[in-house]
Amino acid sequence: MRGEIIAIGTELIIGGITETNSLFLSTELTRAGIEVGFKTIIGDIEGDIESTLKRAIERSPLIITTGGLGLTADDLTRKVVSRLTKRRLVLREDLLEKITRKFESTGREMPKGYSRQALIPSQAFAIENPLGTAPGFIIEHNGSLLISLPGVPSEMEMMYKETVKDFIVKKLEGRGIILIRCIKTFGLPEMSINEAIKDLFKLRDAYIGLLAKPTGVDIRIILRGKKEEEVSSLVGEIEEKARGAIGDYIYGVDDETMESVVGLLLKKMGLTLSVAESCTGGLIGHRLTNVPGSSEYIESVLVTYGNRAKTEVLGVPLETIRDYGSVSAQTASSMAERVREVNRTDLGLAVTGIAGPGGGTPTKPVGLVYTALADGKDTLCRFHHFSGTREEVKLNSSQMALDMLRRYLLAGH
Amino acid sequence: MRGEIIAIGTELIIGGITETNSLFLSTELTRAGIEVGFKTIIGDIEGDIESTLKRAIERSPLIITTGGLGLTADDLTRKVVSRLTKRRLVLREDLLEKITRKFESTGREMPKGYSRQALIPSQAFAIENPLGTAPGFIIEHNGSLLISLPGVPSEMEMMYKETVKDFIVKKLEGRGIILIRCIKTFGLPEMSINEAIKDLFKLRDAYIGLLAKPTGVDIRIILRGKKEEEVSSLVGEIEEKARGAIGDYIYGVDDETMESVVGLLLKKMGLTLSVAESCTGGLIGHRLTNVPGSSEYIESVLVTYGNRAKTEVLGVPLETIRDYGSVSAQTASSMAERVREVNRTDLGLAVTGIAGPGGGTPTKPVGLVYTALADGKDTLCRFHHFSGTREEVKLNSSQMALDMLRRYLLAGH
Repeated sequence: MRGEIIAIGTELIIGGITETNSLFLSTELTRAGIEVGFKTIIGDIEGDIESTLKRAIERSPLIITTGGLGLTADDLTRKVVSRLTKRRLVLREDLLEKITRKFESTGREMPKGYSRQALIPSQAFAIENPLGTAPGFIIEHNGSLLISLPGVPSEMEMMYKETVKDFIVKKLEGRGIILIRCIKTFGLPEMSINEAIKDLFKLRDAYIGLLAKPTGVDIRIILRGKKEEEVSSLVGEIEEKARGAIGDYIYGVDDETMESVVGLLLKKMGLTLSVAESCTGGLIGHRLTNVPGSSEYIESVLVTYGNRAKTEVLGVPLETIRDYGSVSAQTASSMAERVREVNRTDLGLAVTGIAGPGGGTPTKPVGLVYTALADGKDTLCRFHHFSGTREEVKLNSSQMALDMLRRYLLAGH
Repeated sequence: MRGEIIAIGTELIIGGITETNSLFLSTELTRAGIEVGFKTIIGDIEGDIESTLKRAIERSPLIITTGGLGLTADDLTRKVVSRLTKRRLVLREDLLEKITRKFESTGREMPKGYSRQALIPSQAFAIENPLGTAPGFIIEHNGSLLISLPGVPSEMEMMYKETVKDFIVKKLEGRGIILIRCIKTFGLPEMSINEAIKDLFKLRDAYIGLLAKPTGVDIRIILRGKKEEEVSSLVGEIEEKARGAIGDYIYGVDDETMESVVGLLLKKMGLTLSVAESCTGGLIGHRLTNVPGSSEYIESVLVTYGNRAKTEVLGVPLETIRDYGSVSAQTASSMAERVREVNRTDLGLAVTGIAGPGGGTPTKPVGLVYTALADGKDTLCRFHHFSGTREEVKLNSSQMALDMLRRYLLAGH
């Protein structure tokens, strides 16, 4: 079944604001087995809403609109839908009561305009809004299902999850399912992955695409099938083949991040970590501490940005920096060893490099980055030359350092 | 003049990927004085591309497409445009030569399929692609201007800036201009700003909107006018009125960030900074070091996540943590003082708090955050209770700490 999404709101179209509702909805609809054909973003202009909705009803059996259900004269969705589907707007007493009660529970009286939100097209199915005041509604018209939700992302998402999702699942019962899997890799260029897994692209009923990001290349798989088990087993096979082809360049799937994978390994192995950062400026610490519960294994992260901090706070020998420079294998290794000792953790991880745009030299160009890992016995060190903006080099470097740690932990040291 | 944007690519419609090209283009087009009416996102499906383009040409004098100019059978933009506009695809020798030379300069031979990218509709104006291989093109058809650009964001943006922008500006000469200004605030709720600047909403020819984010509330102003000077002077007046109403809650405009504003102040005043972070985990360091040249004023950032790191690395007295807890005004103040002393910088900034989702207690709930600033004479301390996810609390806390520093520097200490 094909679906389409219409996001309504002038603020979405004049630039500067990312429209996120259609992103959420297209992921959800794809998961539910609906092929999203069109996403259209339009302003609060009556003619544009009407022409877009009209065309959508002609061509798509499922349409979801977001926005235009608010209180002001700009909020036109109700009006246009009722005219297009030839239904009167009726004041639903049950909805009005709920809105009134919402205000009462916060001790405020309902301002006058709010009763307008209890107006929905006749014979529509009302969708409750647990977070806000504007209800949504579902209408069947000329064989199409038209679902209108408010534009506030948190309200829209909750209403989708609590009401719309079930509604759609029931409508689609027996029509087959879709499964999305994202396999995340780091360390191989897109072309090499493309070559390594090229046989997978030939599979029927599967969409496989590569997406290159500063944190690595994602392999995105979308599978269609009749039954849950059938599709899961096929996705398992594909994943196994991908692992056979590119092995431990794969660091996680779906919602896993490099920092969550590393965190899980540290926790399992009962190891503690401290980090010394230079060019990444705190990004590794920020990423590691985004994982809930990370205080169990992270003791401290020392961002020794200046050379004095490297020598005085960390205790990197002055001679090391003088003889080899602050961006060198020797300094990176010493930072990893010293941060481990200062914090008395099992492992010490370090990064030093040149994020740019300034600070590069012919022998040490912008993008040159050293990462090091010390465990008290050995110190590993790697280097890489990244290209891109300052922020991309920082992101790349943080990913490289965390991946070095991941590979070390996987090897079971 | 009305414009519309069509983003083409199956990867954009099946969820999981944010479509950013239309965001960039709608901001640019709005700035150029073009009112964006529709943004449509569609997959690599010939019929969908054709019907969407056909309708766009009927209703809009300016259309920009992104994507579908690559090498594979999925890349259909050229084919559909040439059919719709009744122009043959011609192999442009000049474009072919440029693509070939691009490969030669990297020492590789051009793979066979690439010559396809030199095919563009006859009588089209070719747009050079300085970063990639696929050129774009501009066609005038039935009174509409149709501009096709590749889907890779960096290539698309550079081609827009270097070629398309001038082309559009010339087309629109004398039609008036649009100015966008974003005033960024921190520390006041959306409702209070709404109340404080409500007179501004009544202005004619101006769109004023508020956007609440974890980093504060943005006031977005869009102005139309005949002449540059007229519009600039009006935007100046509006900005002045906003400053009169909410004063130093405004921390910057347009591309300025809290970290760039603070960085500029530190640089101007010749002061150095070190930071001690706990719950923000390195985010403050990451943000400060995103600003090029920040090594001039940042010496080090110590992320003392565990209590041992707070006492041993920073030297916070054990008794302070024992008597008041690691999340307290006393610990925050001591962290700011100690990080300043350890790093011998002019200023020390510190944050400690509970990012959640775990770790809260009835007296110290999730979201409770203390920030402190020490200058060797005085130590300031503030606290706040944020709500939201772990990452939102981290972002909020980092903004609050940086804002505390900004206000201190503005006061001319």
